[in-house]
Amino acid sequence: LHVTAETANLVLALRVGGAEVALCAANPYTAQPDVAAALGDGVHVGDYAKGIATVAAWGPDVVLDDGAELIAATHERLRGATEETRSGLVHVRSLDLGCPVLAVNEATAERALNDRFGTGQSALDGIVRATHMLLAGQTIVVLGYGWTGRGIALRARGAGASVVVCEVDPLRALVARMEGFDVLPAAVAAERGDVFITVTGSRDVLRREHFDRMKDGAVLANAGHFDVEISLPDLGDAATEVLPLVQSFEQPDGRRLNLLARGQVVNLAAAQGHPAGVMDVSFALQALSAEWLVREEVPAGVQPVPPAIDAEVARLKLEALGVDIDTMTPDQEAYLNRWR
Amino acid sequence: LHVTAETANLVLALRVGGAEVALCAANPYTAQPDVAAALGDGVHVGDYAKGIATVAAWGPDVVLDDGAELIAATHERLRGATEETRSGLVHVRSLDLGCPVLAVNEATAERALNDRFGTGQSALDGIVRATHMLLAGQTIVVLGYGWTGRGIALRARGAGASVVVCEVDPLRALVARMEGFDVLPAAVAAERGDVFITVTGSRDVLRREHFDRMKDGAVLANAGHFDVEISLPDLGDAATEVLPLVQSFEQPDGRRLNLLARGQVVNLAAAQGHPAGVMDVSFALQALSAEWLVREEVPAGVQPVPPAIDAEVARLKLEALGVDIDTMTPDQEAYLNRWR
Amino acid sequence: LHVTAETANLVLALRVGGAEVALCAANPYTAQPDVAAALGDGVHVGDYAKGIATVAAWGPDVVLDDGAELIAATHERLRGATEETRSGLVHVRSLDLGCPVLAVNEATAERALNDRFGTGQSALDGIVRATHMLLAGQTIVVLGYGWTGRGIALRARGAGASVVVCEVDPLRALVARMEGFDVLPAAVAAERGDVFITVTGSRDVLRREHFDRMKDGAVLANAGHFDVEISLPDLGDAATEVLPLVQSFEQPDGRRLNLLARGQVVNLAAAQGHPAGVMDVSFALQALSAEWLVREEVPAGVQPVPPAIDAEVARLKLEALGVDIDTMTPDQEAYLNRWR
Amino acid sequence: LHVTAETANLVLALRVGGAEVALCAANPYTAQPDVAAALGDGVHVGDYAKGIATVAAWGPDVVLDDGAELIAATHERLRGATEETRSGLVHVRSLDLGCPVLAVNEATAERALNDRFGTGQSALDGIVRATHMLLAGQTIVVLGYGWTGRGIALRARGAGASVVVCEVDPLRALVARMEGFDVLPAAVAAERGDVFITVTGSRDVLRREHFDRMKDGAVLANAGHFDVEISLPDLGDAATEVLPLVQSFEQPDGRRLNLLARGQVVNLAAAQGHPAGVMDVSFALQALSAEWLVREEVPAGVQPVPPAIDAEVARLKLEALGVDIDTMTPDQEAYLNRWR
Repeated sequence: LHVTAETANLVLALRVGGAEVALCAANPYTAQPDVAAALGDGVHVGDYAKGIATVAAWGPDVVLDDGAELIAATHERLRGATEETRSGLVHVRSLDLGCPVLAVNEATAERALNDRFGTGQSALDGIVRATHMLLAGQTIVVLGYGWTGRGIALRARGAGASVVVCEVDPLRALVARMEGFDVLPAAVAAERGDVFITVTGSRDVLRREHFDRMKDGAVLANAGHFDVEISLPDLGDAATEVLPLVQSFEQPDGRRLNLLARGQVVNLAAAQGHPAGVMDVSFALQALSAEWLVREEVPAGVQPVPPAIDAEVARLKLEALGVDIDTMTPDQEAYLNRWR
Repeated sequence: LHVTAETANLVLALRVGGAEVALCAANPYTAQPDVAAALGDGVHVGDYAKGIATVAAWGPDVVLDDGAELIAATHERLRGATEETRSGLVHVRSLDLGCPVLAVNEATAERALNDRFGTGQSALDGIVRATHMLLAGQTIVVLGYGWTGRGIALRARGAGASVVVCEVDPLRALVARMEGFDVLPAAVAAERGDVFITVTGSRDVLRREHFDRMKDGAVLANAGHFDVEISLPDLGDAATEVLPLVQSFEQPDGRRLNLLARGQVVNLAAAQGHPAGVMDVSFALQALSAEWLVREEVPAGVQPVPPAIDAEVARLKLEALGVDIDTMTPDQEAYLNRWR
Repeated sequence: LHVTAETANLVLALRVGGAEVALCAANPYTAQPDVAAALGDGVHVGDYAKGIATVAAWGPDVVLDDGAELIAATHERLRGATEETRSGLVHVRSLDLGCPVLAVNEATAERALNDRFGTGQSALDGIVRATHMLLAGQTIVVLGYGWTGRGIALRARGAGASVVVCEVDPLRALVARMEGFDVLPAAVAAERGDVFITVTGSRDVLRREHFDRMKDGAVLANAGHFDVEISLPDLGDAATEVLPLVQSFEQPDGRRLNLLARGQVVNLAAAQGHPAGVMDVSFALQALSAEWLVREEVPAGVQPVPPAIDAEVARLKLEALGVDIDTMTPDQEAYLNRWR
Repeated sequence: LHVTAETANLVLALRVGGAEVALCAANPYTAQPDVAAALGDGVHVGDYAKGIATVAAWGPDVVLDDGAELIAATHERLRGATEETRSGLVHVRSLDLGCPVLAVNEATAERALNDRFGTGQSALDGIVRATHMLLAGQTIVVLGYGWTGRGIALRARGAGASVVVCEVDPLRALVARMEGFDVLPAAVAAERGDVFITVTGSRDVLRREHFDRMKDGAVLANAGHFDVEISLPDLGDAATEVLPLVQSFEQPDGRRLNLLARGQVVNLAAAQGHPAGVMDVSFALQALSAEWLVREEVPAGVQPVPPAIDAEVARLKLEALGVDIDTMTPDQEAYLNRWR
């Protein structure tokens, strides 16, 4: 996993639950040395391949993974694993798995909360930190209306922007429209926007045909996982760094387009990524999934996180927020069972 | 189906498509005689059982149903059917079906749009028409945070109310909280609310223990399908009709609680039900599902509406709204297929 | 005043305060006979001029007026008066007044609440009742961004519409933009809108040049005081009544534009006007202003409602809503006085 | 003024307009040396008193001030001045002025935009940067509902928080309630809030009686001008610095309250203050006011910024945002003049 303060809390929780824990960094460049030091033995933050090899050799029973590299190296000897990323699950699904892998990335609590609320807040936070921009009064174009796009669109509106959505899937586009957003083809939105945020999972979402129509001074940011959503070749190479995270690309007709963080995911590159208040949900899903893998006999293959764990994590999060809810009466249970 | 202007448009569309159509009223009391007259032959709006018997005897190939009574009478002789209500689907699932039944009620376009946007608007509309109330400044308690509850909560906030949500499911309760609503047990919300709207699908959601804590003058409305969500026996019997759709129940301590429309679904009883702008989506799903049942060989049993029909209806609705969207480039298709 | 249930409550309050009250109808056509009957003696709802003459002859000390006709007839013999309408104040200001007239229409509580929240809700209510339209997913153009325009724009967004504002005053236009609305010239908005609502106080705000650019099926409504904001001559005369309050005007190129309520103020013509929850604020201002005129020696001429009455009405309204607020501590008073 | 990049743009604009400019730092600690260097001669960023004395001795015709110290030293010899702060205006109003001073702080464009949108965004930005907190799902208590409080409340709701407002003025409290916020006495809000933001202009708004009722882990921030709104003595002295800008105060019963930035104005202390997109409005008001003071003969004393300058700045800002608006037709002018 990423070696951060949030991960450290997961490690501590697993230790309290009776586990021995070894940790190697999913990304050695973002590993925080003080966190590694505080966790003590079993933490490997240096060379990536070496860390994975060391932990694999250590012989874990359960692996909690972010990217599936360690799962790939160990699944034949594991009791089970969990995988947190979409791309990791694609990898895992291509394997002939020797153990169960719980798809934490697809849990309801994870999809509904982390993507929408975590990235929704932090992507805009990254844009403000990079540019010192007032969001109110801007026209912000959000390209992609999956969970993350919805979160960004909602927060952009909440910050006083006029929001335009571009989306190729008609059901998602219709929901965006019914939720009050302008929905436009990207080439039309290109003329209207002050800020563009890509979050489609696709590539070249903004390209030459869009750059040609944008206003002078337009800001381009990517909140999707990979830095392929904004076509860098089409932006040209006449870039000036006007602020630490802002490159200005002069276009042939003199307009300047401002790219943030070289097109890398803006909430990580220009802000602090997911707030702790959503990472706790992810890591609670990981920890309870690990416990479940140990307690139960789960068949090999990619499996959903059990709904009861999803619900339990939601319940724990409500408790942490100080929110109390009712339970159904027996009469209500009986009534509803007639419909099931 | 219900014999209304919207249904008439569906009948006309089916006729244009080449069908012969017979129509009997799902609810003879709400049938509009001028609509029946305008549609001409084959429309039966009088006695309910007789209408069903007549249409069943007529020998349809495909049935579009609202409540599953006609499906129950004919499924062994049908090519296929569609069912629009949740309770109808429960009935259908208990049968040993002789034909396919498409679950229009569970289509994505239907769930996301009709329940959330149709009932969201019309339930509040019913409350305003019944009470002539200013919604701004009120505390509105929404009990139940399914699609319909979300729609009502969103519209209530949009009307200037402070909104409290009560929900027994922790995942839904957590989403409500993350969407900025106060989430409280019903007994606590009872003390805070000015207006209460039940939309849980359950029974006795508001009962004696809640009535005892409510403010003098509180307004009670139900937006769930059945009139069992507010316990009428617990309200007492000292009711005065203070406005045509408002009964005031004096409580033992003198407080008065105002029940709208006798606890029946408020958007139908006090307003005009779903706006035409969401019925078109339902009926487009029905019509395209009927065509699909005729064109394809579909196995018997309850089946989902095919995703392609869901998407096509969304596309048609966007077109009707004048909204144009992009399609993916071949490069983008290829890129995304690597992840599928 | 208008002879309605809300006015009846004002009359009863004045009587409880010790006044003798005579009432003649500001508009005899909207006078409710049962209200007049319930109030008993001194209520004149028949011929307009005769009602005014009768009440003037009766010899009131204080007049609460809506339109200033009675003030014009009696001001030389009055102790004082209040005037509720903008047009009435224009009339009053042209007189050589023999008594004080309090400008209730310009009180803070009145301007901020009635126009924004009362008309905001009821104008959209009128449009939905007249058309049975789903507001979510529509593009609604609000022409004019005074208090009423702000209220309508806010409620339209809250109902799920995408909202465009047209405004000629740059300060108001800038505020609209910073509040997240698209701000456009009317000729550009004409091409984008599904619904147009005029609320400028000006005339011919929508005219031939705009009608020429609108979509087929566009809906036109006026929420301003007078029916001059939409140019009826420019709409043409080929009108069909497609619903009781909807006239469809076919344009030379075949497009149809749907005018609501013949361009009269839509919240009165198609709905019930201001909800009771804002009329109470207006009438509390009237009642307390009347009391103040009796207790104090107020110089002749148009005067503002005293700020203490504004604040007292706000306090009473909060109390009615069950909202409790703090007062400053003596230390805080002392601290703030250093800045005054 | 503050020696920042935004001020540098003002200086350049004044030079382009033909002025000779000397600049001394309103706050030498925040002065940016590279900005001072880039502006060249006439910029004094070292010792505060010395800078003022040097510029006063230089003999300006017009002073643009932030705090009124330079006005106090020079007003008898000036053609005119502008003052940007509320506290500066209090100072200026206590002087026997020898020149006109334009109250830029009280201009419409300044009040409506800077306070509401600038501080609204940047105060929450400061809180997120200091705490890495997810705002969605939090209960945020805003104490004070002036322009700045409105901005913060609006942005907090837009970020997914449930917002409670505390306000002692009943008119403001009523507006907050009608805008959909919970309005509570501070002692009640103290039990409900996760985050508290003071913005009243008063002192000891949060004090012992409130700290006693708060939840463990509550966050306290001040967005008012002075650091007196949160009573530091009442917080106790057992503070631990848990993050660079977060001090945790342990209460006698073990609860910990987290104070941000030692109670100093959080948008400056933890973020970058007003975004450039609102400073441009302030500085355009300053520049056009300076020009007006030179062109016109303005009487001595504190004067409002002329409405035409307010409107012109709004127009320029709309132009900068790419927003085009209509002007009235001569017929409309004539029509409206009948009401004036």
